[in-house]
Amino acid sequence: MSMQSFSRKFAVLFIIWALAVLSLASATQARAQDPLPSWNDGAAKQAILDFVQATTDQASPKFVAPAERIAVFDNDGTLWVEHPMYTQLAFALDRVKTLAPQHPEWREKPPFKHILDNNLPALAATGKQGLMELIMATHAGMTTQEFEKIVEDWLATARHPRFKRPYTELVYQPMLELLGYLRANGFKTFIVSGGGVEFMRPWTGKVYGIPPEQVVGSSIKTKYEQKNGQPAIVRLPEIDFIDDKAGKPVGINKFIGRRPLAAFGNSDGDLEMLQWTAAGPGARLMLLVHHTDAKREYAYDRKAHFGRLDEALDVSRQHGWVVVDMQKDWQRIFPSDK
Amino acid sequence: MSMQSFSRKFAVLFIIWALAVLSLASATQARAQDPLPSWNDGAAKQAILDFVQATTDQASPKFVAPAERIAVFDNDGTLWVEHPMYTQLAFALDRVKTLAPQHPEWREKPPFKHILDNNLPALAATGKQGLMELIMATHAGMTTQEFEKIVEDWLATARHPRFKRPYTELVYQPMLELLGYLRANGFKTFIVSGGGVEFMRPWTGKVYGIPPEQVVGSSIKTKYEQKNGQPAIVRLPEIDFIDDKAGKPVGINKFIGRRPLAAFGNSDGDLEMLQWTAAGPGARLMLLVHHTDAKREYAYDRKAHFGRLDEALDVSRQHGWVVVDMQKDWQRIFPSDK
Repeated sequence: MSMQSFSRKFAVLFIIWALAVLSLASATQARAQDPLPSWNDGAAKQAILDFVQATTDQASPKFVAPAERIAVFDNDGTLWVEHPMYTQLAFALDRVKTLAPQHPEWREKPPFKHILDNNLPALAATGKQGLMELIMATHAGMTTQEFEKIVEDWLATARHPRFKRPYTELVYQPMLELLGYLRANGFKTFIVSGGGVEFMRPWTGKVYGIPPEQVVGSSIKTKYEQKNGQPAIVRLPEIDFIDDKAGKPVGINKFIGRRPLAAFGNSDGDLEMLQWTAAGPGARLMLLVHHTDAKREYAYDRKAHFGRLDEALDVSRQHGWVVVDMQKDWQRIFPSDK
Repeated sequence: MSMQSFSRKFAVLFIIWALAVLSLASATQARAQDPLPSWNDGAAKQAILDFVQATTDQASPKFVAPAERIAVFDNDGTLWVEHPMYTQLAFALDRVKTLAPQHPEWREKPPFKHILDNNLPALAATGKQGLMELIMATHAGMTTQEFEKIVEDWLATARHPRFKRPYTELVYQPMLELLGYLRANGFKTFIVSGGGVEFMRPWTGKVYGIPPEQVVGSSIKTKYEQKNGQPAIVRLPEIDFIDDKAGKPVGINKFIGRRPLAAFGNSDGDLEMLQWTAAGPGARLMLLVHHTDAKREYAYDRKAHFGRLDEALDVSRQHGWVVVDMQKDWQRIFPSDK
């Protein structure tokens, strides 16, 4: 090979190599620039990007000052799995089994008897009264510090019956990206859940990056007292606040004190929160996660026992709110998915 | 004058000028470096500086991660003036006078009659029952948005009877500096006040740099409903939560969800909040503002009707908590002071 042809060959190879490197770099950059890589392109993803652009670009007529950027998220079914039952209910059932040896009377007494018999239909038939007795037996009577430890210990060992993983790993990767994307754009992210606030606060920081003071939920009453010479806050067997349905805007007003710009839910329990958010001026984002993916997660809506989505689905479609089709819109479901 | 003596004279003048500039610059720098310029040197100021140093210096054995740095402040008498009466009571009395033409029956009906007669002893004699009727007549029956506007309009025109200034200017300059100093060191600052949460939230952002979601206070119940086809949150004539005394740690647990590192108050209503704060591990700062300055502000403690400081003063001294002597420790009281 002449020196000249070697040079020419080298030049050609160099150009090919350079193009390859450049195209690789540009693909990497495109991925790096996509703040929502687990969202497939489509109307849902575009609506999120458009909303953030409209509220954060100073040149936009819908620009909102950073301090006013409030986003609220339901938890069960919106940020983590709520089937085959709410995680907090799984916690309560396990708790009854753990405490049963200290309560021999539970063997014959509903709703505890049904739990010990693994008879869920009978448990469900005990209704609101049974649920209250279950909550009070498993969630009250200890200090807030003791309850926090009980929750942490349970989460460390409990596994989801289908996915065989800790519940805190069964969070939705696309929603984690959405939380991060909103925060990177100056939004303050809150949980507004029907679940118990003290069941969530021990782990929302680690799992969602949401600190305890940004978690709104249902609660039981507490009492400050001296216990063994030390101040303690004791959990009482009495409901304080139910943060569900019309309780969600009330909870938002009570705990956050201003109307959100964006609200994310997945069930009829979130409808009033979305309506309250939508009724404010300027750019708004209302989004429902529709569980349509029986293969990767679950498919349920109008007839579900947990996370029923019926009226809210109709209202969302009527108003053109974003309805995420989990199967179509989400490339990955869980962080562990490929 | 010879050229030489001129040069010498010039050199001397130059040195004097340079020294003056340098000393001026160094004084300016010293002031700029003092994060609490309105605090006189002394034990109170030093305790604050030491606490911040201990919790924020990574080399300190008492270092606390930024996310855990929670500081809570009482409002009335701790951040702003509470004499001759709580500002919210002044608001309620003015509100009765404004609404009186629509309520001719108030002319003969306690507690309203006493307010219209400017008979404060008789009003006080109506006790808790009278206070409740007053709160419900002036704070309930409107939407949250309407109430916010009523508060804003009142604050814009109301003047303190002695200082003849808007109440929002009668905030303590040393405490504004303390709030800013803590935030500059990664602390999240909260108000935890016996006052009504929706009486405070409209203005705490502008005045203290504390956003609505970091204000904890007493509240009345609310209800979400459709009003003229629009979602609204309506204020109901029923107490929801009293954020005072043992209610303060309960409110902290309910709204913030973790124990503060530092707590600032000025009355017996703050005692349990300080005790709850003190009972946590590691470095803690508990501080009481003692009103000792009748000339620049007010002097009151054990016998005060508003902001009584009695048991909390004894407990503070017993535990070595910081007691600020307003007269001695504060170089300025209000932002407008020289």
